Amino acid sequence: MIFWKNFFHNSSINNSSDKTFKKLLLLDKNCNRIEFQDIYVSSTNNVNLYELEQLCDSVGWVKRPLKKVKIALKNSSIIVSLVQKNDSHKRLVGFARATSDSGFNATIWDVVIHPDFQGIGLGKVVIHQLIKQLRQADISTITLFAEPDVISFYKKLGFIKDPDGVKGMFWYPR
Amino acid sequence: MIFWKNFFHNSSINNSSDKTFKKLLLLDKNCNRIEFQDIYVSSTNNVNLYELEQLCDSVGWVKRPLKKVKIALKNSSIIVSLVQKNDSHKRLVGFARATSDSGFNATIWDVVIHPDFQGIGLGKVVIHQLIKQLRQADISTITLFAEPDVISFYKKLGFIKDPDGVKGMFWYPR
Repeated sequence: MIFWKNFFHNSSINNSSDKTFKKLLLLDKNCNRIEFQDIYVSSTNNVNLYELEQLCDSVGWVKRPLKKVKIALKNSSIIVSLVQKNDSHKRLVGFARATSDSGFNATIWDVVIHPDFQGIGLGKVVIHQLIKQLRQADISTITLFAEPDVISFYKKLGFIKDPDGVKGMFWYPR
Repeated sequence: MIFWKNFFHNSSINNSSDKTFKKLLLLDKNCNRIEFQDIYVSSTNNVNLYELEQLCDSVGWVKRPLKKVKIALKNSSIIVSLVQKNDSHKRLVGFARATSDSGFNATIWDVVIHPDFQGIGLGKVVIHQLIKQLRQADISTITLFAEPDVISFYKKLGFIKDPDGVKGMFWYPR
């Protein structure tokens, strides 16, 4: 199993002409660098909608109107993208975003990692990156709604399920 | 027990010089009008921070820095206030707000009704008003985090707890 140690490999940032991307340093259990992935993290809101749609398709999500996706991204407080890029190509391989009041609370939505890149700790990277930025903005309550199969994943990252009996509740149009 | 039938009593709007307020029509079980409350609903973001602090104090909430409250209100998509007003005074008696990406999801925060005005359906009014406005904005997933003592209240309003095993999770600073 592979895991990440640090989010950024600062020494390689300058290799990229696009300063919005920071290269991830991925390490295996023996702390050997896994360079071949060429994966960068970015927090720009300027996400290509078609690339995002392709990423969401890859994990079988229901299609959403791009016009609404554009609005949702515009009104998200923080967006984190993971991009595999080299001289010949650039590919969105991970994504997550959060809405927030920028004062107290935030809610994380749309956490997705391309199946080809799952199992190497990239889910942790996007969540840690979101938490880091929300904490920099002094947000104290970071929330999300977790499907049953990812509850243990979020627990490992420090999220608490139903603290003090508080329940997540949903209202849907009828 | 008293309950509300309609959100607005349109015929009485013109009695108010401030068009941002709409008078509530409160009815008892026999559909008798309860006029004495003089309660109006408003969706302006221009909420007096000290009045809001006073309202939150009345239900024993932990004090929050007004500077951060101001930022949180500014970054909330929808704010609903209930105000008791007549010729001689104006008093904030209810409040709720929602963050949203304005595309798909919203989360409701800070639902509070002054103890003197609880039990007459005003909690339902603020939630229905939020839902109404979020639906007008075509938001399909309206969420909240409910303390154990208000879960049944939200269930009656159509909210579903842990649908399909989805769990609300919280991350707090350590």
